[in-house]
Amino acid sequence: MPTPHMQHELLFGNVKLFAGTASPELSQEIADYLDLDLCGRDIIEFPNENLFVQLQSSVRGQDCYVIQTTSSPVHRNLMELLILIQTLKLDSAGRITAVVPYLCYGRSDKKDKPRVPITARLVADMIVAAGADRYMTFDLHAGQIQGFFSIPGDVLRGFHILKNYLLELAPSLHNPVVVTADLGFAKKGRVYADLLQTGLAFIEKKRTSDITNPQAMTVIGEIKDKDVLLVDDEINTGGSMVHAVNILKEHGARDIYMIFVHPILSNDAAERLAALPVKQFITTNTVPIPPEKRAFLGDRLVVLSIGKLLGEVIQRANEGTSVGEMFNE
Amino acid sequence: MPTPHMQHELLFGNVKLFAGTASPELSQEIADYLDLDLCGRDIIEFPNENLFVQLQSSVRGQDCYVIQTTSSPVHRNLMELLILIQTLKLDSAGRITAVVPYLCYGRSDKKDKPRVPITARLVADMIVAAGADRYMTFDLHAGQIQGFFSIPGDVLRGFHILKNYLLELAPSLHNPVVVTADLGFAKKGRVYADLLQTGLAFIEKKRTSDITNPQAMTVIGEIKDKDVLLVDDEINTGGSMVHAVNILKEHGARDIYMIFVHPILSNDAAERLAALPVKQFITTNTVPIPPEKRAFLGDRLVVLSIGKLLGEVIQRANEGTSVGEMFNE
Amino acid sequence: MPTPHMQHELLFGNVKLFAGTASPELSQEIADYLDLDLCGRDIIEFPNENLFVQLQSSVRGQDCYVIQTTSSPVHRNLMELLILIQTLKLDSAGRITAVVPYLCYGRSDKKDKPRVPITARLVADMIVAAGADRYMTFDLHAGQIQGFFSIPGDVLRGFHILKNYLLELAPSLHNPVVVTADLGFAKKGRVYADLLQTGLAFIEKKRTSDITNPQAMTVIGEIKDKDVLLVDDEINTGGSMVHAVNILKEHGARDIYMIFVHPILSNDAAERLAALPVKQFITTNTVPIPPEKRAFLGDRLVVLSIGKLLGEVIQRANEGTSVGEMFNE
Amino acid sequence: MPTPHMQHELLFGNVKLFAGTASPELSQEIADYLDLDLCGRDIIEFPNENLFVQLQSSVRGQDCYVIQTTSSPVHRNLMELLILIQTLKLDSAGRITAVVPYLCYGRSDKKDKPRVPITARLVADMIVAAGADRYMTFDLHAGQIQGFFSIPGDVLRGFHILKNYLLELAPSLHNPVVVTADLGFAKKGRVYADLLQTGLAFIEKKRTSDITNPQAMTVIGEIKDKDVLLVDDEINTGGSMVHAVNILKEHGARDIYMIFVHPILSNDAAERLAALPVKQFITTNTVPIPPEKRAFLGDRLVVLSIGKLLGEVIQRANEGTSVGEMFNE
Amino acid sequence: MPTPHMQHELLFGNVKLFAGTASPELSQEIADYLDLDLCGRDIIEFPNENLFVQLQSSVRGQDCYVIQTTSSPVHRNLMELLILIQTLKLDSAGRITAVVPYLCYGRSDKKDKPRVPITARLVADMIVAAGADRYMTFDLHAGQIQGFFSIPGDVLRGFHILKNYLLELAPSLHNPVVVTADLGFAKKGRVYADLLQTGLAFIEKKRTSDITNPQAMTVIGEIKDKDVLLVDDEINTGGSMVHAVNILKEHGARDIYMIFVHPILSNDAAERLAALPVKQFITTNTVPIPPEKRAFLGDRLVVLSIGKLLGEVIQRANEGTSVGEMFNE
Amino acid sequence: MPTPHMQHELLFGNVKLFAGTASPELSQEIADYLDLDLCGRDIIEFPNENLFVQLQSSVRGQDCYVIQTTSSPVHRNLMELLILIQTLKLDSAGRITAVVPYLCYGRSDKKDKPRVPITARLVADMIVAAGADRYMTFDLHAGQIQGFFSIPGDVLRGFHILKNYLLELAPSLHNPVVVTADLGFAKKGRVYADLLQTGLAFIEKKRTSDITNPQAMTVIGEIKDKDVLLVDDEINTGGSMVHAVNILKEHGARDIYMIFVHPILSNDAAERLAALPVKQFITTNTVPIPPEKRAFLGDRLVVLSIGKLLGEVIQRANEGTSVGEMFNE
Repeated sequence: MPTPHMQHELLFGNVKLFAGTASPELSQEIADYLDLDLCGRDIIEFPNENLFVQLQSSVRGQDCYVIQTTSSPVHRNLMELLILIQTLKLDSAGRITAVVPYLCYGRSDKKDKPRVPITARLVADMIVAAGADRYMTFDLHAGQIQGFFSIPGDVLRGFHILKNYLLELAPSLHNPVVVTADLGFAKKGRVYADLLQTGLAFIEKKRTSDITNPQAMTVIGEIKDKDVLLVDDEINTGGSMVHAVNILKEHGARDIYMIFVHPILSNDAAERLAALPVKQFITTNTVPIPPEKRAFLGDRLVVLSIGKLLGEVIQRANEGTSVGEMFNE
Repeated sequence: MPTPHMQHELLFGNVKLFAGTASPELSQEIADYLDLDLCGRDIIEFPNENLFVQLQSSVRGQDCYVIQTTSSPVHRNLMELLILIQTLKLDSAGRITAVVPYLCYGRSDKKDKPRVPITARLVADMIVAAGADRYMTFDLHAGQIQGFFSIPGDVLRGFHILKNYLLELAPSLHNPVVVTADLGFAKKGRVYADLLQTGLAFIEKKRTSDITNPQAMTVIGEIKDKDVLLVDDEINTGGSMVHAVNILKEHGARDIYMIFVHPILSNDAAERLAALPVKQFITTNTVPIPPEKRAFLGDRLVVLSIGKLLGEVIQRANEGTSVGEMFNE
Repeated sequence: MPTPHMQHELLFGNVKLFAGTASPELSQEIADYLDLDLCGRDIIEFPNENLFVQLQSSVRGQDCYVIQTTSSPVHRNLMELLILIQTLKLDSAGRITAVVPYLCYGRSDKKDKPRVPITARLVADMIVAAGADRYMTFDLHAGQIQGFFSIPGDVLRGFHILKNYLLELAPSLHNPVVVTADLGFAKKGRVYADLLQTGLAFIEKKRTSDITNPQAMTVIGEIKDKDVLLVDDEINTGGSMVHAVNILKEHGARDIYMIFVHPILSNDAAERLAALPVKQFITTNTVPIPPEKRAFLGDRLVVLSIGKLLGEVIQRANEGTSVGEMFNE
Repeated sequence: MPTPHMQHELLFGNVKLFAGTASPELSQEIADYLDLDLCGRDIIEFPNENLFVQLQSSVRGQDCYVIQTTSSPVHRNLMELLILIQTLKLDSAGRITAVVPYLCYGRSDKKDKPRVPITARLVADMIVAAGADRYMTFDLHAGQIQGFFSIPGDVLRGFHILKNYLLELAPSLHNPVVVTADLGFAKKGRVYADLLQTGLAFIEKKRTSDITNPQAMTVIGEIKDKDVLLVDDEINTGGSMVHAVNILKEHGARDIYMIFVHPILSNDAAERLAALPVKQFITTNTVPIPPEKRAFLGDRLVVLSIGKLLGEVIQRANEGTSVGEMFNE
Repeated sequence: MPTPHMQHELLFGNVKLFAGTASPELSQEIADYLDLDLCGRDIIEFPNENLFVQLQSSVRGQDCYVIQTTSSPVHRNLMELLILIQTLKLDSAGRITAVVPYLCYGRSDKKDKPRVPITARLVADMIVAAGADRYMTFDLHAGQIQGFFSIPGDVLRGFHILKNYLLELAPSLHNPVVVTADLGFAKKGRVYADLLQTGLAFIEKKRTSDITNPQAMTVIGEIKDKDVLLVDDEINTGGSMVHAVNILKEHGARDIYMIFVHPILSNDAAERLAALPVKQFITTNTVPIPPEKRAFLGDRLVVLSIGKLLGEVIQRANEGTSVGEMFNE
Repeated sequence: MPTPHMQHELLFGNVKLFAGTASPELSQEIADYLDLDLCGRDIIEFPNENLFVQLQSSVRGQDCYVIQTTSSPVHRNLMELLILIQTLKLDSAGRITAVVPYLCYGRSDKKDKPRVPITARLVADMIVAAGADRYMTFDLHAGQIQGFFSIPGDVLRGFHILKNYLLELAPSLHNPVVVTADLGFAKKGRVYADLLQTGLAFIEKKRTSDITNPQAMTVIGEIKDKDVLLVDDEINTGGSMVHAVNILKEHGARDIYMIFVHPILSNDAAERLAALPVKQFITTNTVPIPPEKRAFLGDRLVVLSIGKLLGEVIQRANEGTSVGEMFNE
């Protein structure tokens, strides 16, 4: 992806990278790609849990990027992001971009029942209120969440990271089919099916006459004797994935590959996934996976890094060149 | 639906109903339900196309509702809505609610390609900028569009209008199944399937080896010898519906009922639909259907009115009582 | 007017010109002056009238100008302008200037009756809400409309285009006098009288004892045996101009020249003007005049282009040099 | 004007009147009309000129009106107004209306030269920033200034105060004519001419061949042997009025009545006016005239009070009834 | 404190009390005072730590109060507060008041070093962004934090809770003196000294020639043989209090009473305090003290409840009557 | 302080300095430091006290600084500042910084009584509403006032100007001690004590049994036979300083030096100070001291200029380099 860049005039000041505490490895990878050092900043948590930030050098007029994912501990990480943004603003940064590989609260994106919040809008408002001029993120739960922000953003897709791996994998697959376990992800599933030129199937509730199990799942579409690419945007507790794998096996699926962008892996998700007859778990590092969870999944876990892609997008944002053309769009 | 209301203290001033020119019949129906007159207002279009509005009486401190759908002529109707809102604001209305049964630009709700707008957010911003305090609408293209507004709203569902009709229809159906022609509508389709306790199927692209027709459609799920309820949120030109009906018939569907909330019916949609082997076209009046289009569809067209429902929601909004409990939610 | 420009450092990114569909010829003329290509953009109108825009290349950090007048079809053109602005904003443009030679709704600029809108403020709010950082326009109906915007703007005067032509014309005039047909334009009329060092007269209502015609017009000031320069900011239906010419002729005017900045020419205005004993119709292209209307007026129509002036103003805005000094101000 | 009011439910809390120090007599008059006491408040000026305000009782949820004109000392009065508004807001007032009979900086309402401010917009922004929900004022220099506010307002006209007096005066006038000394006021002059069914004339610059006096004034229209009603919105230093009266007398005017809404009377204006052959000076108390200035003008000064009118408007604003219908509009 | 209330008209809808999970006992106490039930709401934490809220009944047009302190877990509690506020706003609450007995991040209230945040402003902005119309809190770290909010608030003082207890205690004290351990609290200390008519002393750094201990503390003022009331706004880890007590004892203080509004008691603060020769720890329940911490302090801990005071303030806010007069202010 | 600056790319346009009328000498000193001319601007006061501003050349895209202190005449100076800011904004300045050495209304920074304003927040809001992007000032009355602004600022400390002088003075002092006369300034007093490695004492109310003088002042801490540095942030009428000097002398102080940043010197403050047994009055020129006041204080008055410091800060703000490192922070 990295391409040679033309010499350019300075539009936005120099790139200044700040890492929150949530994604230190990813932040370093981005810095390496850009051949920059991460800017020094002190982040202290006082005994009363209040956070304190101090930048070690001035950012006046510079083009600042705060890299901080909002996975666990979610609220602390979110607050740290907001404080970093405000600190940069108060130090007269030229432009501030919140780089949030995984944006929390994406599933609270609409009022589908009365008297519930739209927390994703609240999070967007908070990021704007703190002083961000732009944001970058990966695979919002719904693309419409972009419209919750009053500032521009780059919403990147893990698909662009995952697709090369899948294309390499494809020749070794037997009669592959793409399956989604959530109807809301059906349309995005089609992108994978188009890439690999396969069919598409869905796991969905089946209405039965069996009163004891009226919500049994079924498969809509053909999967028998096929290798299944089970795709989703994130895996949280893995509960629905356990059901999905079971139902797929019941319906005669061959090898199963689980593909997802955001490895949230709450609670004992890693342990539960490890017990499943899944050949590979293919994901990215939008959320860091702690070593103890990695251990459960062993060699079956494939984590593809978004670092170089983010580094390149930051460079293009700073230069004022196209991000879309990186993906031939 | 109308239930007796308790005597209440005045929270928001009296209800004042204003009708734009887009939905006169619906507006009158709402007024009738509420046993009110529509408030007098002059709406003039000057020769230079500029619109002019004058209210015939004061609305100081009152609880005002502007009823205006944003169907064709879309931009004129939208502007008329905005001008009416601003006029009410400048006349010191107590509270202003934009009642927009069909909200235009719902399909421009995310950046799924680079360098495109999110026009639904722009429309939301315009309504807020004009001075609306609240909004009411039906079936947004994506529920997330609620999050584009910084003001509260009541997003009602045509389903609540359609369901009674469908429940009455159900006993006469033979082995019914709900089908959606758009994967993006799959999840909403499930609500209909749950209501009628039927299965669910999808029309989706089928990858073929036939180079001449690589995009042929297919049906995922069982429909053979079943009566099909083909559901969607709106019908625009009807193009995809023509394809859907054809593929359903090819796959052995029995009777087909087409159910949709917003009858946009652009261009010659009514004429094209009329030519299809569809038993009924069941829809609402969120968008008025002109007589010449009604004529094409004749008795097969069933238009269920949202008037009483909107009237009741307005009354509850004015009284400060629950709308959700109208739907047992 | 074009003067050599000093080499300058980059303040705002490069100029990127985007043309809406309302003024293609003017847009091209501006591009030619600046020796730039118009930036590619797709503008599509769907069957449901909703517009869709996509930019063909990235504008990150660039200094963007959207050229779009808001003449007929007024509301579609206005919406297209707003969508273009938002698209640029969402693509992270560095600065966005709305270049709107004729700004619609200028006559709705105050509440001179109860319960009416101030639509010009609404339009200003919409342009700001869409994301514009600056605007450029010509001859607002009232100069105060500048105060409706919370963003800076360049309000240019057609007078600067027209005056050179008038100065060339002057020697051939016999005893010229400037006349205004609208008391609200009286003060601007004086600028023309000062330029040409002529007197000033007004057409105004005359109170008569004739009950059948109490609103007869009269002329205040001397026009007998004089060549008349009848000036106004815009001509809409031409109705008041027909009356004005008649009354001028009754009062002994010699040749009449009609001078106006914005040629709205609604309905059959061109045809009606063509029938008048007017020697020349001198105007600009802030609003494009379609060929069929031009045909009515033939050689008597003189259209002076604002293209070079706008091009120069855009260049100066981009460089950060004075626009005022172009006019020795 | 005062009419019996129907019993009404409480829309906005009770009326609470607060008087700034600029218009104590007018404030009392309004309070008397409404049969209310002015609310106690301390206003202190510290030795460093900083003002301090404390309300003597709570205004939580109440409908508050701050009566403060912005005549001399202009900036102190303006600041006092703003501080009073903020104090009410911070004490959780229900609604705050700035009642500013004369709004300063009205003549700075547009950029008619490069690089000048639009201070009237700034003043509007300051009033809104302080926390006002509404405003009331009299005769803005340009009606468009209403569009500078993002909040609703009642812009009243001194004409409604002056007209009854003029109608009583009319029978005693000999062949009256309305004259304006400023072309910008020409249109408003017509309202007076319509009321009294008289002609209209203007005082305007005359282009002469006399190099020593190229800017000599002249009269456009008929005034010889007529009683002149010389109308304007405000009199500041009176300089142009001195010229106007002289030129009117030179052209054979009979008695001259000077009519103006805002008696600013800066510097020695009262003394200069007193020396003129003017029969009456008819004005209002939007600006208080100090006794020493009144003394110069003696019996020729007629000050009509806006107090009852403002009282009635406040009552209607509180009740949510129409203000426009007070003027049959 | 509770006084009989006059019958009043409805200004703001009925009081609706919502309790977050941080202060259940205090919330119940407030509800009891007001003779109301806490409104039902579900608050769920998903395995991915994201919170979800649903109100059990409608709040349209009602006067809603969210009771939630922002002590540990600080960021979760803050987010819960914000989500509750937004949920109320989206359900069209009439007015929303954030009742936050202890507001976190109060010590980050200014840039006293370069490149640090003002997090208290950020927190204020977040509360406003979420949709609060008003706020209530106790003893902000600096009174100026009120100015960080763009909405009105009631900032109550623990002093009003503590003073009655202290006045009862006073007769039993021997020669009392008020001492503050933080110069920033010196001015507030004076309020206690005025109440009890005692002297005032400070603990402050002493510059010594002892290189090994250059920061030794000392006492400024007279405390020998006096009973000391050591006052502060909050106790966090208790570290400075340990030093303070030691130095006081070294300087001959008799009995020591520690008085503070916010019992944060981070880490092992309770245990450390318990080891001190302090006669009583007198505080409030703005922050709940868990039983295990209470156990350390035993009978020496006196917790005075703010519940009734908050209940009364809420009632007055709803009625639109004065809060200040509760304190004879 | 001035250090060599590296060649830098243009981040913000060129520095453009504009001086209001309040601090002409300081403005010139800043211009001299930066080797720039002050930009030409006309500032006119009309007879009606309204101010008018016109810039003499364009500021498009430039980095503009408005130097205007807000001392007497306070409100006129404040308004002039705001008008200058708006004028720059409307002329499309690239960035606008309000340079306000002394910010008025700093003492109105919190609601310490019911029903009072927070005027410092109002002033901050006004500066932002006028269009400032940043601000610079010296020694806010409370550091928290920074949090009243929604824009970044540089709050400089007079201490950095005064300290060099005090360090030079120190060797000639006999047993010096730093004293503050206001408990609110106690913490800032410590910074002086740390600088000079002296003790710290306070002047404070003493509760006496003498009914005739219950508020007698006393000194807390050791001052006998010491040279006293009496420090404060501003001197207004000097009243409390007169008391402080008297009480210090009563308690045996030797020489007294009065040190303060802002020489407001209202009313006859200069005359009163002159009568005191004070050896030197050491201050800055954040507020200009008129010659007649200087005359009272004669050689004892030492005014240290902030001009070079402000010049350097402006240069660094323009270049995007650190201000904090000027002070080794």
